[in-house]
Amino acid sequence: MGKKQYKFSSKAVDCYFDADFSLLEKLVSQENAIIITDDNIASIYKETFKGWKVIAIKPGEKNKQQSTVDHVISELIKLQADRETFIIGIGGGVITDIAGYTASVYMRGIKFAFLPTTILAMVDAAIGGKNGVDVGVYKNLIGTIRHPEFLLYDYSFLKTLPKEEWINGFAEIIKHACIKDAAMFELLANNSIEEFQNSPAKVAELIKRNADIKYNVVSGDEFETGERKLLNFGHTLGHAIENIYKLPHGSAISIGMAAACKISETINDFSATDGKRVIDLLKKYKLPVYLKFDKEKVWKVLLMDKKKAGDTMNFVLLNKIGEGIVKQIRLHQLKELFNQVRKKFAKSPLGDLGV
Amino acid sequence: MGKKQYKFSSKAVDCYFDADFSLLEKLVSQENAIIITDDNIASIYKETFKGWKVIAIKPGEKNKQQSTVDHVISELIKLQADRETFIIGIGGGVITDIAGYTASVYMRGIKFAFLPTTILAMVDAAIGGKNGVDVGVYKNLIGTIRHPEFLLYDYSFLKTLPKEEWINGFAEIIKHACIKDAAMFELLANNSIEEFQNSPAKVAELIKRNADIKYNVVSGDEFETGERKLLNFGHTLGHAIENIYKLPHGSAISIGMAAACKISETINDFSATDGKRVIDLLKKYKLPVYLKFDKEKVWKVLLMDKKKAGDTMNFVLLNKIGEGIVKQIRLHQLKELFNQVRKKFAKSPLGDLGV
Repeated sequence: MGKKQYKFSSKAVDCYFDADFSLLEKLVSQENAIIITDDNIASIYKETFKGWKVIAIKPGEKNKQQSTVDHVISELIKLQADRETFIIGIGGGVITDIAGYTASVYMRGIKFAFLPTTILAMVDAAIGGKNGVDVGVYKNLIGTIRHPEFLLYDYSFLKTLPKEEWINGFAEIIKHACIKDAAMFELLANNSIEEFQNSPAKVAELIKRNADIKYNVVSGDEFETGERKLLNFGHTLGHAIENIYKLPHGSAISIGMAAACKISETINDFSATDGKRVIDLLKKYKLPVYLKFDKEKVWKVLLMDKKKAGDTMNFVLLNKIGEGIVKQIRLHQLKELFNQVRKKFAKSPLGDLGV
Repeated sequence: MGKKQYKFSSKAVDCYFDADFSLLEKLVSQENAIIITDDNIASIYKETFKGWKVIAIKPGEKNKQQSTVDHVISELIKLQADRETFIIGIGGGVITDIAGYTASVYMRGIKFAFLPTTILAMVDAAIGGKNGVDVGVYKNLIGTIRHPEFLLYDYSFLKTLPKEEWINGFAEIIKHACIKDAAMFELLANNSIEEFQNSPAKVAELIKRNADIKYNVVSGDEFETGERKLLNFGHTLGHAIENIYKLPHGSAISIGMAAACKISETINDFSATDGKRVIDLLKKYKLPVYLKFDKEKVWKVLLMDKKKAGDTMNFVLLNKIGEGIVKQIRLHQLKELFNQVRKKFAKSPLGDLGV
């Protein structure tokens, strides 16, 4: 087991890498703790969770809405949760978002921790303090920024992770490579999802590396006034299409990254060769790279993006592989750029990587 | 006009005392601002608000629920509010709580300010950063602590304030006197609600004095680990009965203060003479001092009080008039103490000050 402390302006978060679930009862009092998880995990790990109080919610992004938070709150009341209660979110990004948000507003904030069970949550969602819910199709429109007390990484949970969830998680790993880590881009290009799946040591190292990238970006800019915006690479179009087309988050941002690469080629001297390499890597990890989207529907959702400021959008482009950059783009220009991308998408050959 | 800056750990709040509504457009851009108020105020001040975007919600504590926040959020989306949007809460405590909470979670936090229009909001609710909503009968179970950018006090709004709202506000003023300011207790005893209502200068001075008391307590203990708990005087029983019996907040905490005085006499050497003086002052300001409550119903709600920690409650007692103290009381003892108070309430003569 490797313990590492991630320091943020408001607090320090202890990260227990390569740990075991059994560590949990040494970190929190079982009496005060309440696990928040989803029905799938609650059912698979019924024996593991014996002795713990558990609130299980319906799985999936479509349930990441206020109504689910309302339900969790009513369950907390039934369990007479008070300010000494410690919430443990066990699951993927939907669970860490909902558990972190509920804990942040229940009695004006109680303590919480995460045990991320998906690649995506391990490398991204559980780190950095952002939490919240969608409002209908609008992604993460409501939430707070508040850090957990600790993160416990028990990789044995990955044994039951469905293949599509591995794919989902690699989208965020590829994102990190694109904006920050050219060497990791090569590592990914020289490997495959199956090789990582079959090598616990390799995947543990990759998760740790990505958790460090996320942490390093966030710790320098906790409230997203500068570098943290880079993490939104692929997330502008990605978030706009995700809930409209009910796409997995990884698929949505993969399509968003492909679009952002094309836009980077058009307005930012990003080379077509590098552009092709990104697209090829996304495809290699079974991620879709285009979508014939409805331009007006998508634009309407995109206008509610949190990255919009007045009549400009903070948009992430690539200079080269391993180096992202944030540019303010006027909304009318961005709309035109997306329409061009959309035309390119429409010409793409139909195949199993399209949606 | 008098400007004063209140400094908290996370930010400084500018307070404009004795200001005019017209100052607002100098402090925020009308284009970016959205006023959140209630139907009553929106209708009375329709002309005043001309040129401003307004979201009006139904008035009253019974609407201080998540469903109202959900509604405000959908209105914000319709108005395409983004991170540059500035929320202005104009109203009493329900409005400042809802506006502050919505602004704290919308897009993970946008800027906001308050223009309190009731005595209660001016001396209490608008100051200190606490915001949130009730969950059914449970008071303020959900919320955050986040400060407004500024407070604008335009006393002319008091001209349209109903008498019962004056009474409501004086409950918090008497609370401040009991826990912190014996001299103000004398001032209140030597005056009456009508005298304050008829003297704008007197009421302005009183409001400023109470805002300072609240600020001084909160600034030293923003996250309520110590002295801020004193502000909960009368609020334990008060919060438990408020929503069950649909009492105005001032009436509920007045009954709570009367009960806390009796408990202070029993377990804290608070003199019966001082106890009688508090009761007499509450009555003088037309506040009720007893209620024949349902003990099991009330106890059930009381168990969800945020001041509960495990099997004890942080309960505010008086040492003497002008000096409050927080004591941890075991729940079983507190239940017994409340039952004794309840018996005394049941013996009280029925009169226009009972409920």
